[in-house]
Amino acid sequence: MSVEVELEESVNYTPVQRMRHSAAHVMAEAVQEIFPDARFAIGPAIEDGFYYDFDLPRALTPDDLPEIEARMRRIVGEKYPFLRDRWPREKALAYFGNKGQNYKVEIIENLPDAEVGIYQQGNFLDLCRGPHVENTGQIGPFKLMRVAGAYWRGDERRPMLQRIYGTAWFTQEELDQYLWRLEEAMKRDHRKLGRELKLFVLSDDVGAGVPMFLPRGEMLRYLMENYVRQTQEKYGYQHVWTSHLGKVRLYKTSKHWFTYRENMFPIMKGEQEQSEDDAYLLKPMNCPHHILLYKSQMHSYRELPVRYAEFATLYRYEKAGTLTGLARVRSVTQDDAHVFIRPDQIQQEFNNAVNLTLEVFETYGLKDYYVRLSLRDPQKKEEYIGSDEVWENAEASLRGAVERKGLKYEVGIGEAAFYGPKVDFMVHDALGREWQCSTIQLDFNQPENFELEYIGEDGQPHRPVMIHRAVTGATERFMAMLIEHFAGAFPVWLSPVQAMIIPIADRHNEYAAKVLEALEKAGLRAEIDLRGERMNAKIRDAQLQKIPYMLVVGDKEAAADAVSVRLRTNVDLKSMPLAQFIERVAGIVKTKSQEL
Amino acid sequence: MSVEVELEESVNYTPVQRMRHSAAHVMAEAVQEIFPDARFAIGPAIEDGFYYDFDLPRALTPDDLPEIEARMRRIVGEKYPFLRDRWPREKALAYFGNKGQNYKVEIIENLPDAEVGIYQQGNFLDLCRGPHVENTGQIGPFKLMRVAGAYWRGDERRPMLQRIYGTAWFTQEELDQYLWRLEEAMKRDHRKLGRELKLFVLSDDVGAGVPMFLPRGEMLRYLMENYVRQTQEKYGYQHVWTSHLGKVRLYKTSKHWFTYRENMFPIMKGEQEQSEDDAYLLKPMNCPHHILLYKSQMHSYRELPVRYAEFATLYRYEKAGTLTGLARVRSVTQDDAHVFIRPDQIQQEFNNAVNLTLEVFETYGLKDYYVRLSLRDPQKKEEYIGSDEVWENAEASLRGAVERKGLKYEVGIGEAAFYGPKVDFMVHDALGREWQCSTIQLDFNQPENFELEYIGEDGQPHRPVMIHRAVTGATERFMAMLIEHFAGAFPVWLSPVQAMIIPIADRHNEYAAKVLEALEKAGLRAEIDLRGERMNAKIRDAQLQKIPYMLVVGDKEAAADAVSVRLRTNVDLKSMPLAQFIERVAGIVKTKSQEL
Repeated sequence: MSVEVELEESVNYTPVQRMRHSAAHVMAEAVQEIFPDARFAIGPAIEDGFYYDFDLPRALTPDDLPEIEARMRRIVGEKYPFLRDRWPREKALAYFGNKGQNYKVEIIENLPDAEVGIYQQGNFLDLCRGPHVENTGQIGPFKLMRVAGAYWRGDERRPMLQRIYGTAWFTQEELDQYLWRLEEAMKRDHRKLGRELKLFVLSDDVGAGVPMFLPRGEMLRYLMENYVRQTQEKYGYQHVWTSHLGKVRLYKTSKHWFTYRENMFPIMKGEQEQSEDDAYLLKPMNCPHHILLYKSQMHSYRELPVRYAEFATLYRYEKAGTLTGLARVRSVTQDDAHVFIRPDQIQQEFNNAVNLTLEVFETYGLKDYYVRLSLRDPQKKEEYIGSDEVWENAEASLRGAVERKGLKYEVGIGEAAFYGPKVDFMVHDALGREWQCSTIQLDFNQPENFELEYIGEDGQPHRPVMIHRAVTGATERFMAMLIEHFAGAFPVWLSPVQAMIIPIADRHNEYAAKVLEALEKAGLRAEIDLRGERMNAKIRDAQLQKIPYMLVVGDKEAAADAVSVRLRTNVDLKSMPLAQFIERVAGIVKTKSQEL
Repeated sequence: MSVEVELEESVNYTPVQRMRHSAAHVMAEAVQEIFPDARFAIGPAIEDGFYYDFDLPRALTPDDLPEIEARMRRIVGEKYPFLRDRWPREKALAYFGNKGQNYKVEIIENLPDAEVGIYQQGNFLDLCRGPHVENTGQIGPFKLMRVAGAYWRGDERRPMLQRIYGTAWFTQEELDQYLWRLEEAMKRDHRKLGRELKLFVLSDDVGAGVPMFLPRGEMLRYLMENYVRQTQEKYGYQHVWTSHLGKVRLYKTSKHWFTYRENMFPIMKGEQEQSEDDAYLLKPMNCPHHILLYKSQMHSYRELPVRYAEFATLYRYEKAGTLTGLARVRSVTQDDAHVFIRPDQIQQEFNNAVNLTLEVFETYGLKDYYVRLSLRDPQKKEEYIGSDEVWENAEASLRGAVERKGLKYEVGIGEAAFYGPKVDFMVHDALGREWQCSTIQLDFNQPENFELEYIGEDGQPHRPVMIHRAVTGATERFMAMLIEHFAGAFPVWLSPVQAMIIPIADRHNEYAAKVLEALEKAGLRAEIDLRGERMNAKIRDAQLQKIPYMLVVGDKEAAADAVSVRLRTNVDLKSMPLAQFIERVAGIVKTKSQEL
């Protein structure tokens, strides 16, 4: 999930950013050679590369990039020094004004300084605060990536400029790696694979950010959720069901109405609702509902922790522009839980949640992750709810548990919510990209808002502490990550279709049906490819669908109660007795192994 | 689900209704003896009994009923004849006016007739069209049930009267049966049991008709849905997931916007939605979404039937006054499916749906049901969409399948929807009450609305037929029926908690934990009662919770790896090896047997 961040020009550039920024100037020089009338806007370093925005007499196409690259290579070869200068503002305004460089003029007019920075390399002089490398020869291996439109200052009422994106690295190996990762990321894009593997579809008739799942995608959801459900049960969680609606008055009590409203869908107020308080809202989180369930029963100190989990779809009114496939949606199905504990149970319960999370990561084969620990700012204690003692105990419990587990972690001082500290698990996928998954968040505030109680050993009412907790986070986003992590080739236990049975000729359909029945009886998911295609085409299609096993059946297999097993990796296991195949696969499914 | 229907006085009374109506007059005579100034409103027969509305000088209490009953018994013993007369309107107005019987006067004033009916028995004379039994001695065993307030003419701006409800039957056995059924229905009321068994709660903060499920209720939901899911898979269904939202434009295409809007929640139109078409609606049915999924892929005649099933919660804006526990809700979770077939597959697919339904009924032990077959009115063919040939074939297929299965059925001519014939399964529960469950509905219309296609053997596009199908109907209503049918004592496979482990003393807690672990390892659901209560109290509580097995563990059991098994029926199975208990229960769960 690389987000393009425009870095402020100069000042805090790292060495690689400085080099990329210099590459942007070199690109501008090359463009100036081709289009002497080009007008220049800005050219910063960005994540993994750089860009420059131009106002050109004609539209660029991808075919223009090789020539620009060639000219850049020549300029790099010249090893032109980057010459730094400072000009009085008026001199700069006159210079760029004379050249018709109205964007530069506008930038200078908006600068408060009496002097502005100027850099020149070869024949290209630019308004720039720097810093730059010493000479163009220090620019590493680079590649221009693409041309895109970009509004001047990002304002759609201003002119549309042409932006050329490039990437640059210190070594050829780094560049190659980066290009491979890009290509791989494109191949693994969950939106592309979601279509190809028939997992999900989006429709304007349902709305942006509200994906619908085809049978194979639904099976994946079901397997993911059922696995977490069973694991949660093992860790003492009970599941509840609380619908998708709440009344406005509920979110006033929880205070979300005042702090979270912009993320909520519009209210529903029909003729049966008397007041705003009475209007319905789509539920954007489960906590208030789980609190109502907790409150509906009496609780003794002996019963705590009470752990309520729910796979509810939450609805959040995200901006349409931010929605991306499954990675950012408006219908968010969280594996959400709320745990009600005595204050003395924080450490034990936090350990329980961490253990659960680590077991789930282990099962999914996610090995590269770290923990982000968000603590309060001890200089601003007054901004946080809850006593010093509770905070110190809670923060020590969290940090202690993370350290005892030997987890890599970062601390964010002052990043805690006002109502409690938390930890987030950040996972790197197979391409090294970071995804936020699990969260464990203490909450000293909602028990106050809803006046929650349990009866203590002393027979008196006491206030519990709450933990908000998600393991994989949102099913949709976690699925997006799994699709990209596995490039669609899911472990056998997660594969919506585990085996495709391919009869060689129509006369083998009957035996194929017997094989299907035997697999289904063993709890395996299989299909028969009955299309009128040739065998090789069927094998190739099943491999493209990333189905783990192709079972080719013909006369020999039918006679021997066997199947010829080909893997999606194209390894040919040859013929084996059907019973042996079933035993092998059932074992792999049972252990949730990543083997085939 | 007994609904009180006020029958129009006289005219079409059956013999038992006539007798009950006479009982109402006898009750009125008894009331007149006690309150000579009583004013009388109306006193019809209703389902299972009768009532009479009175305007009395003081409020009645349940303590008044025995005296009224005693006087009624005396009047019945007198065998007063019911004397019929016809009076001119003016005479009747004068008579009732003189007596201050203003309600009778108002009734007469609203009658168009020149003459009105008069009945008299003993000392009570009433305005009445009859008919009645010959004399009061023909009134069978009766009982007065309760007193309630009722507005004159049901109008809350008119005076509040006092209504006495009674029941009367031809034989004492019928009366006893009825009273037992009433008492049993009250004990089995799913709202009462839902609270006691901790299955679900309702909260004003979430809204009327939107129940939330506590852990035990959620487990019941999960088990019910998972069972249907697995059965559906066996019958070739694939599950999909399509969210809880749709855009207004989707329901314009499906036409629901024009025909079903009053049952939909208010639209959600925020700053991100440009037009009404773009506004969101809570999904009141799944068909349009399943159609979009079907349409998102190419389909060949070889693939059909395509069967999409989903356990989606649908939201319907039912009137608040009609909502009842789980039986009538606004959040309706249907085990809904849509099947896309070639026209030549109607019979085969209908058989498939009927077989699936019967298997599910069999599993739940529902044996008393019949089928309601809704056909078109052949006199009004122009009101239905689809050709004669398609209708005749479809109706013959439905009727043929029902007959071949030997199912009891009723035919409703003219009851088909304009878009296709259907069958509904009506189930009687243990108390003989009727619940509508499964529906199988053909649809020739939505494939037209959405221009659905499949590629036929001829390579040309053809239009499929759709089947809307639900097995148990709504999870919520089916659960209400199951709770009342089983009086909360669910079969073992459906019991949220299957065994309660009861350690005799604290020193047996450790062995209890071992028993729990063994049960959970075998996939059974159990809990340990660790409360500080005495053993007998724990057994009684577990029985009240309708938990199938109580496992008492003490020194002897711990020494012998055994459990002392008591059933919720209070049968004592004595001590048995733990392994034997597990084997017994696992077998019962596996076969979904109703045994314990």
